[in-house]
Amino acid sequence: MNHCQVSFVLPEGRVVETRSASGITILEAARAGGLEIQATCAGRGRCGHCRVQVEGKLAPPSPVEQRILTPGERARGIRLACQARLEGDLKVILPKVAAGPAKILTAGTAAAVPVDSGFTKKVVILDPATLEDVRGDYERLRAKVEMSQPPLAILRQLAAAFRQGEGKVTVASFKDQVLSVEPGDVSGELYGMAFDIGTTTVVGSLLDLRTGRELAVSAARNGQAVHGADVIARIQFAQTVPKGLQEMQKKVIQTLNTIIADLLQEANVKPESVYGLSVVGNTCMQHLLLAIDPSPLGTSPYVPVFQSPLVVEAGELGLQVNPQAKVLVLPNIAGFVGADTVAVIMAAGLDQVKEPVVAVDIGTNGEIVVARDGQLWACSTAAGPAFEGAQITCGMGGTAGAIEGADVIDGELKLQVIDGEPARGICGSGLIDLIAVLLEAGIIDETGRMLSPDELPDEVPADLRRRVVAGERGVEFILTEDGENPVVLTQGDVRELQLAKGAIYAGIKILMNEAGLAPQDLSQVILAGAFGNYVRKESAIAIGLLPIAEKDKIVSVGNAARMGARMALLSQEVRDRALRAAAAAQYVELSGRLDFQMEFADAMLFPRPGGHLDKI
Amino acid sequence: MNHCQVSFVLPEGRVVETRSASGITILEAARAGGLEIQATCAGRGRCGHCRVQVEGKLAPPSPVEQRILTPGERARGIRLACQARLEGDLKVILPKVAAGPAKILTAGTAAAVPVDSGFTKKVVILDPATLEDVRGDYERLRAKVEMSQPPLAILRQLAAAFRQGEGKVTVASFKDQVLSVEPGDVSGELYGMAFDIGTTTVVGSLLDLRTGRELAVSAARNGQAVHGADVIARIQFAQTVPKGLQEMQKKVIQTLNTIIADLLQEANVKPESVYGLSVVGNTCMQHLLLAIDPSPLGTSPYVPVFQSPLVVEAGELGLQVNPQAKVLVLPNIAGFVGADTVAVIMAAGLDQVKEPVVAVDIGTNGEIVVARDGQLWACSTAAGPAFEGAQITCGMGGTAGAIEGADVIDGELKLQVIDGEPARGICGSGLIDLIAVLLEAGIIDETGRMLSPDELPDEVPADLRRRVVAGERGVEFILTEDGENPVVLTQGDVRELQLAKGAIYAGIKILMNEAGLAPQDLSQVILAGAFGNYVRKESAIAIGLLPIAEKDKIVSVGNAARMGARMALLSQEVRDRALRAAAAAQYVELSGRLDFQMEFADAMLFPRPGGHLDKI
Repeated sequence: MNHCQVSFVLPEGRVVETRSASGITILEAARAGGLEIQATCAGRGRCGHCRVQVEGKLAPPSPVEQRILTPGERARGIRLACQARLEGDLKVILPKVAAGPAKILTAGTAAAVPVDSGFTKKVVILDPATLEDVRGDYERLRAKVEMSQPPLAILRQLAAAFRQGEGKVTVASFKDQVLSVEPGDVSGELYGMAFDIGTTTVVGSLLDLRTGRELAVSAARNGQAVHGADVIARIQFAQTVPKGLQEMQKKVIQTLNTIIADLLQEANVKPESVYGLSVVGNTCMQHLLLAIDPSPLGTSPYVPVFQSPLVVEAGELGLQVNPQAKVLVLPNIAGFVGADTVAVIMAAGLDQVKEPVVAVDIGTNGEIVVARDGQLWACSTAAGPAFEGAQITCGMGGTAGAIEGADVIDGELKLQVIDGEPARGICGSGLIDLIAVLLEAGIIDETGRMLSPDELPDEVPADLRRRVVAGERGVEFILTEDGENPVVLTQGDVRELQLAKGAIYAGIKILMNEAGLAPQDLSQVILAGAFGNYVRKESAIAIGLLPIAEKDKIVSVGNAARMGARMALLSQEVRDRALRAAAAAQYVELSGRLDFQMEFADAMLFPRPGGHLDKI
Repeated sequence: MNHCQVSFVLPEGRVVETRSASGITILEAARAGGLEIQATCAGRGRCGHCRVQVEGKLAPPSPVEQRILTPGERARGIRLACQARLEGDLKVILPKVAAGPAKILTAGTAAAVPVDSGFTKKVVILDPATLEDVRGDYERLRAKVEMSQPPLAILRQLAAAFRQGEGKVTVASFKDQVLSVEPGDVSGELYGMAFDIGTTTVVGSLLDLRTGRELAVSAARNGQAVHGADVIARIQFAQTVPKGLQEMQKKVIQTLNTIIADLLQEANVKPESVYGLSVVGNTCMQHLLLAIDPSPLGTSPYVPVFQSPLVVEAGELGLQVNPQAKVLVLPNIAGFVGADTVAVIMAAGLDQVKEPVVAVDIGTNGEIVVARDGQLWACSTAAGPAFEGAQITCGMGGTAGAIEGADVIDGELKLQVIDGEPARGICGSGLIDLIAVLLEAGIIDETGRMLSPDELPDEVPADLRRRVVAGERGVEFILTEDGENPVVLTQGDVRELQLAKGAIYAGIKILMNEAGLAPQDLSQVILAGAFGNYVRKESAIAIGLLPIAEKDKIVSVGNAARMGARMALLSQEVRDRALRAAAAAQYVELSGRLDFQMEFADAMLFPRPGGHLDKI
């Protein structure tokens, strides 16, 4: 077997040298070298996100590459890392998009939560041992602090802590469980962290558990993403790759540790002083975090291994905080409605509202909750990754160079591009804006058909009209023309969006039917998550994403899941509410329901301009 | 630095080759090679137990060797392993005594304990998951079995166990804690083990937790013994040698695993089917088992780190049974009155007796309990190792070749030697018998002085008379004359015994004083432990070991500590009683007590033949 020298040039200029067997793909060589190349389809040759530029010897382009790469790209040495196989020494230039920082939402509405975390610190002065009082160190401590049996690790430290503190120690506890016994008075150091583990992004906050104050926020891409963009790909990886489950856990723990290090540095806090963590995420993320096999989630009836809240030790997971710190894993509602949705319920107080409300967290899956008078209904609908820019011809995540918004001003198309860079693709909010613009202009009709240049109504402004072209992929709308990689919106992209928004709309309708609600009954539609913050409400209404026509009734609450995670960390009452809400929420399984298919078919249509799908 | 090739020839003929730096001792070279040479004084050149025969190059005998080894031994190439330092290649022949099996007591009186262990198995048939019932595996199980949150290891196995068992699983629990979820019906396999970890010997039983039946018993020398014979030496080792505490834990865990393997093989039981273990031992042994620093036990006020009962996981300790098995560590009373004494209290029912009783467990430390009407007093008295054959000129443990008994029949001295081999030394019970014989014959007087040949009364039979000689060590009594290593009893040995028995007697008296008891109030004196089984009651009375003159009031209960450990494993009620007894027992610290010094001085005397120290 021949070996090839492969040099990876990272965006920041650093070069990583690896030695790999010939015949393996660039993606595999990169992983072996500890590098991650974004491959949202998990290396199945579908997404085309793993484009790299190469110099050197490779096997000829695969059929997949021939289909996905343009002739111009191929001429410039662009290859798909998941397809191109080594034949000799190679230089691989990794594109900026693969490694660049993502635009991730970390701000959320502040909610006032009474601090009642269960995490406490108590300074204890111990009675000295004498010939008359020969009680053990442990018994001496127990006389002052109520506690259940501490772990061996703590019993082993007692004698030293007592001696070093000259009889004065600080005991950190979670309820009656001792988390540390430290010499002297260190009662001022009592910290916790709240995490929202998204399929794509992980966000964490550092909190002072005495005051509830948020001291730092940090986010990172979920390291699991290199093995697949969505939960289905992750489940498959965990199920089919040897040690895949452990690898998945390792990746997310690494991501959490990166965020932890960041938070600690920002606030100048020691790892040992972090005693509690709360974690929310979808049900699959929760399973992977704990290395519990998520396979059953992948096949009907989509049953999780656990739904209940769990408490595990940070050390057991390899989290780099106090090893005895308690990790509070919030409850899940069902296989595809996870603790992140429970956290949204907490943050928005859905378990307590009287007026009927719909809350939607739009991602690859749209998790939907309908609340009415303390009752909750929940479902998950497979929106597909269109809202996250995947499966869209020029789709991309919300990173630098993504078109995130569009307007027509004085007949001219104006694009908003993240970081003001030249447009390189379209992200979710941009897609919705663009389709709203094209609907308004009459370029797309009610059924989603993009009119051909010769069908366009006369009113279409010249700047828009000239952008409509009939290409080999059918009718396309050209957004940027510079270079050999024009950014376009195709008929297929419109269809993807119709499927996505139809799934969301139909899911909402089914839950409303279950709850006996008509659209006019809704007092509010709450949009949770980053998408909700970035999407323009007018556009969401224009494309018929939501069963509502009043802009004012749409409320974006930002990263409500993280907010809920924070609340749960800080309050036992919130944890109790979360447990009750998760158990009481009526989960509605959409798969196989005829009424869902009917609603879905209707909801794929677009409203007429200014209209509404339900004609309200 | 030169290296020497050292070949160790084991008693069974096996040869272990090692390569060691010149200048280190044979003991160190042996340890580096994974071999253990008995060194009861922890290699301090005191006990002389580490005699080995050598061929090859060594540094000249040290002053210690010159003192301890006879010229004949030196001529035969006998050296002390702890003293002799390598100078070149060497062959070391390990003596049989160092590796031979010890005579260890494993039989105990059977006590009828109602089985109420808290360990249970339950066969569960789970509701199948459907689109209508999407509860998680964990929730499905919890609906059938009441449980607290299981450890992650068990949650990780749930899905596989359910699938493999086709919906039928067996749940093993300790109270509400799940220990295993196994596919199918394996409710018949529910085992536990009870251990008594002695400083010298560890004994274990395998029990069927459904019936309480004992299926196998096994014993082994405590592997820690190579690092010192008594608890003080062990504490010093743990305290002063780097990683000494971890080494001590490793040794005892290895010993336990040897016994575990033995028990499992004997009863043909799988390691995973052992779900519970109970452990008793002295306070130091309990600390070392858990790798909790015993240092505070070594200095006044001799305070332990813990006294309370603890429950830890077998896997955490490295015990080779089900890793989730619960290890029930019984409570200690004080630094030198441990869980083994609590177990004796349970086995003898001392917490429930009405009539005044004394129980004594004689070893290096004598643990004494006085019970009166449900009240308990306990102390520990430093008897020294005389009863275990150490510090006695020709002392040895109760192994083959030890004189274990003596009589005078028709004026002739008759010796009982273990296994009927030629006598090589004297063990504890033999020592007491011999001294009783010499007291009776008038060769030793009331003060413990051994009369010189010319002082002997006329009535002394000729066979005894000729054995009394005045040697360089003072007056000696010759037991065997064959070979160059005669077995003798010296004046010094008598003094050692006086110190030992005086300490026991005085300890008993102090506790009786505390309890307001006179010798005639005692209904029984209970002798626990191997020593109690082997010692002749008449001899114990004759030397004034116990404040009692009636043979019928002395009861030997054998290994009552192991019995108590078994009872505690099988019964929550016994565990509750043990906790109450350990907490309620009034510990009496003898050190520094003037009245103890007074009693001790009196108790060192011997009774006149047929008499009693307290003249009752």
